[in-house]
Amino acid sequence: MVDYIADYLQQIRDRRVFPDVKPGYMQSLVPDEAPARPDKWEDIFADVERVIMPGVTHWQSPYMHAYFPALNSYPSLLGDMLANAISSLGFTWASSPACTELETIVMDWLGKMLGMPSCFLHGDRHSRSMGGGCIQTTASDCTFVTLLAARTEAIKRYKVGQPDLEDAEINGRLIGYCSDQAHSSVEKAGLIGLVKMRFLHSDDNLSLRGDSLQEAITADRESGLIPFYVCATLGTTGACAFDNLREIGPVCEKERLWLHMDAAYAGSAFICPEYRSWMLGIEFADSFAFNPSKWLMVHFDCSAMWVKDATALHRTFNVEPLYLQHENSGNVTASPHWQIALSRRFRSLKLWFVLRCFGVEGLQKHIRRGVELAMKFEDLVRSDHRFEVSAPRHLGMVVFRIAGANELTEELLKRLNKQGKVHMVPASLKGNYVIRFTVTSQFTTEVDIERSRVF
Amino acid sequence: MVDYIADYLQQIRDRRVFPDVKPGYMQSLVPDEAPARPDKWEDIFADVERVIMPGVTHWQSPYMHAYFPALNSYPSLLGDMLANAISSLGFTWASSPACTELETIVMDWLGKMLGMPSCFLHGDRHSRSMGGGCIQTTASDCTFVTLLAARTEAIKRYKVGQPDLEDAEINGRLIGYCSDQAHSSVEKAGLIGLVKMRFLHSDDNLSLRGDSLQEAITADRESGLIPFYVCATLGTTGACAFDNLREIGPVCEKERLWLHMDAAYAGSAFICPEYRSWMLGIEFADSFAFNPSKWLMVHFDCSAMWVKDATALHRTFNVEPLYLQHENSGNVTASPHWQIALSRRFRSLKLWFVLRCFGVEGLQKHIRRGVELAMKFEDLVRSDHRFEVSAPRHLGMVVFRIAGANELTEELLKRLNKQGKVHMVPASLKGNYVIRFTVTSQFTTEVDIERSRVF
Ligand SMILES: Cc1ncc(COP(=O)(O)O)c(C=O)c1O
Ligand SMILES: Cc1ncc(COP(=O)(O)O)c(C=O)c1O
Repeated sequence: MVDYIADYLQQIRDRRVFPDVKPGYMQSLVPDEAPARPDKWEDIFADVERVIMPGVTHWQSPYMHAYFPALNSYPSLLGDMLANAISSLGFTWASSPACTELETIVMDWLGKMLGMPSCFLHGDRHSRSMGGGCIQTTASDCTFVTLLAARTEAIKRYKVGQPDLEDAEINGRLIGYCSDQAHSSVEKAGLIGLVKMRFLHSDDNLSLRGDSLQEAITADRESGLIPFYVCATLGTTGACAFDNLREIGPVCEKERLWLHMDAAYAGSAFICPEYRSWMLGIEFADSFAFNPSKWLMVHFDCSAMWVKDATALHRTFNVEPLYLQHENSGNVTASPHWQIALSRRFRSLKLWFVLRCFGVEGLQKHIRRGVELAMKFEDLVRSDHRFEVSAPRHLGMVVFRIAGANELTEELLKRLNKQGKVHMVPASLKGNYVIRFTVTSQFTTEVDIERSRVF
Repeated sequence: MVDYIADYLQQIRDRRVFPDVKPGYMQSLVPDEAPARPDKWEDIFADVERVIMPGVTHWQSPYMHAYFPALNSYPSLLGDMLANAISSLGFTWASSPACTELETIVMDWLGKMLGMPSCFLHGDRHSRSMGGGCIQTTASDCTFVTLLAARTEAIKRYKVGQPDLEDAEINGRLIGYCSDQAHSSVEKAGLIGLVKMRFLHSDDNLSLRGDSLQEAITADRESGLIPFYVCATLGTTGACAFDNLREIGPVCEKERLWLHMDAAYAGSAFICPEYRSWMLGIEFADSFAFNPSKWLMVHFDCSAMWVKDATALHRTFNVEPLYLQHENSGNVTASPHWQIALSRRFRSLKLWFVLRCFGVEGLQKHIRRGVELAMKFEDLVRSDHRFEVSAPRHLGMVVFRIAGANELTEELLKRLNKQGKVHMVPASLKGNYVIRFTVTSQFTTEVDIERSRVF
């Protein structure tokens, strides 16, 4: 298996990035039932190429330019092999002390790499903070979890004035905010949390501004609603645009709204100081999240989330039956409780291995290289008058379209993906159908970018 | 790493099952910051023994008798190595067709192995059902997700009569039920879903009965609440007790409540026909979940969930922006959408490898062996007059205590865990402090069970 994996990754260039199969392709290739007696390992192994690979979209391919990256790397794979071999469930400190402790330490490492203010770090024995970081499954989970924490806070605060109101009644009046460019997971979080969510107009740079937010809050308060939560996006899915934290932050502070920052993709870039201007205003955040599982070569799942004050999270999630209590219960940060599930994997191992094997400088190099390649692609698009770059390029992502009717771009994308030599996906930017081109794989070279210029 | 893992698992007997460290032990062993330049692999690798292993609770150890099992196995580890090497995110069919398709197929295999009625299976091209199975992260997630689906259904149904009511207002009157033996995740699901949850008295066998449920529903309806959800437990955390599905099922049907069955641990045993009597009444379930990641040697995370009719799940979770649409959007079961997160790992590979490498008979043998060993331990306890078995033994779990005051048992458990040679955890059964003894590891032998008789 190790050899197969090494070959797979080294020769991934030879594979069609986007598979050529139709829904249901697999059903005729495998039996209807599990075997009663063991299958031979050779047969199982042979089925990887016969059954699985024909239907795989190769996310590690240098020709993968769809979605945001979801990279792996050898250190990450090795770290997870070890975690799975140990296979301990870190739901309390005692259920596997190393799991809780390493996560705490590595989240502080990562926070320092991003230049996070120290109030977001756990700190050491001598100066424990109220906040800290933990690893969540996805950025969607981070948004949902912080929305819940904000909801808990808001309900609690509101009840002080109106102790007779039921939680659900207050909940019915809560309203959260994000820009019209926010990821669908913000809408989902609102739906599941049963709170209203208002999608505010972003400006011409696709950025949410302070005055739009302030106006909406004022109007909503007047109509009896309770504004409680803002999800700002750093690096939107559609165009890698950035909400204006320095404007939004003071509004949230003044109005006492929970400010969450979703930097799912772009967060990885903040390990490079030159990209941190987009983080200005981070001190206003109540929570901040990004996915090392996207661009930082820690394979999915691994979402890094920090909070300034964990009290609301504890209040939201803490349920502590006897079988989870142990002698040291009181002494440890209970980050395991900052999530819906109880059990959690030993995910910090793969993150630790990656940080150590590449070093901060190695990771910075990887990010800068991705940005350079995206700039190269942008140049190619700009040099061809038939195309237009639809929004400013930020980091490793270029959005473009054929000048003219949406249908042209739609048709182009369909043909590209049908050929399967490169893979991209569309987005809609203020009514324009655009193609998103992201540099993902660490195997992508200048020559590949040239080759992507299929048009 | 492969050699290290093989050695780790083969020699796990030599390690202390429960670590001898204090909270914060790791901080002095590692630097405060990530290295700027790459660490040497030898140093990183050496730190596994120096930094990590001293703080690991060895869940794969034959002396692990705490919690429920969380096993791995070579096929499972290999399957996940492959999944991580591919590292595709299965959030739509197109984002990795093999991921969606294999999951559908393998969940049907597993459903058949458990004797699930066909309405819970996806079926084939010729007879697609309304239901089907998918892999979730944890049993907690399954409970939460089904509670949300039930909530969506209930709100929708109630609005027909009262179209002016706001969702949150209806939500404030919803009430769910479980027994006082249910896992803490049911309480958590209620808290997060902002619905009331009533914990009903279980009978002397720690089993929830139909008449208790019926009484509560009637009383709650009279006081203006809206009963909507029942979480029945098959194999409770405290004593592996079973709620009475044949009584609860008809009540739920008559009262139109969503019936979820949480068989987190015990579900694995249902691959053996002789244990399926506890499943009688399964036809009344709207949803059913168990964790192959517990007893079936598929390492965490892997929770199998089936629903009879996926409509409510779709309605709860469906948010479909342009970048997730693709040519085949309409043709595929959208199980990726049955969860809070968008992205999902290729978890079916490890499950597929395990089912094929062991075969159904191999897995049955593993389950039966665990039960036999637990029976042996039960005999040992019963043969010593100082002890009492606190509840009927079911499957691989024995709960026992020292006859007399709770403090005696508490002191015993403390001493046992301090020695670190075996590891067990407590539970509270109707006011009695008991020790939970589970047979977990596939390495446990009769001799180990004898050795566990440390008292
Ligand atoms: C801005 C943004 N937020 C959230 C997400 C969702 O990430 P996840 O799959 O980790 O939930 C994405 C995914 O690309 C994203 O771009
Ligand atoms: C009956 C029951 N339900 C739910 C759970 C929670 O499982 P998970 O960690 O997969 O959420 C457990 C855990 O042991 C359990 O015993």
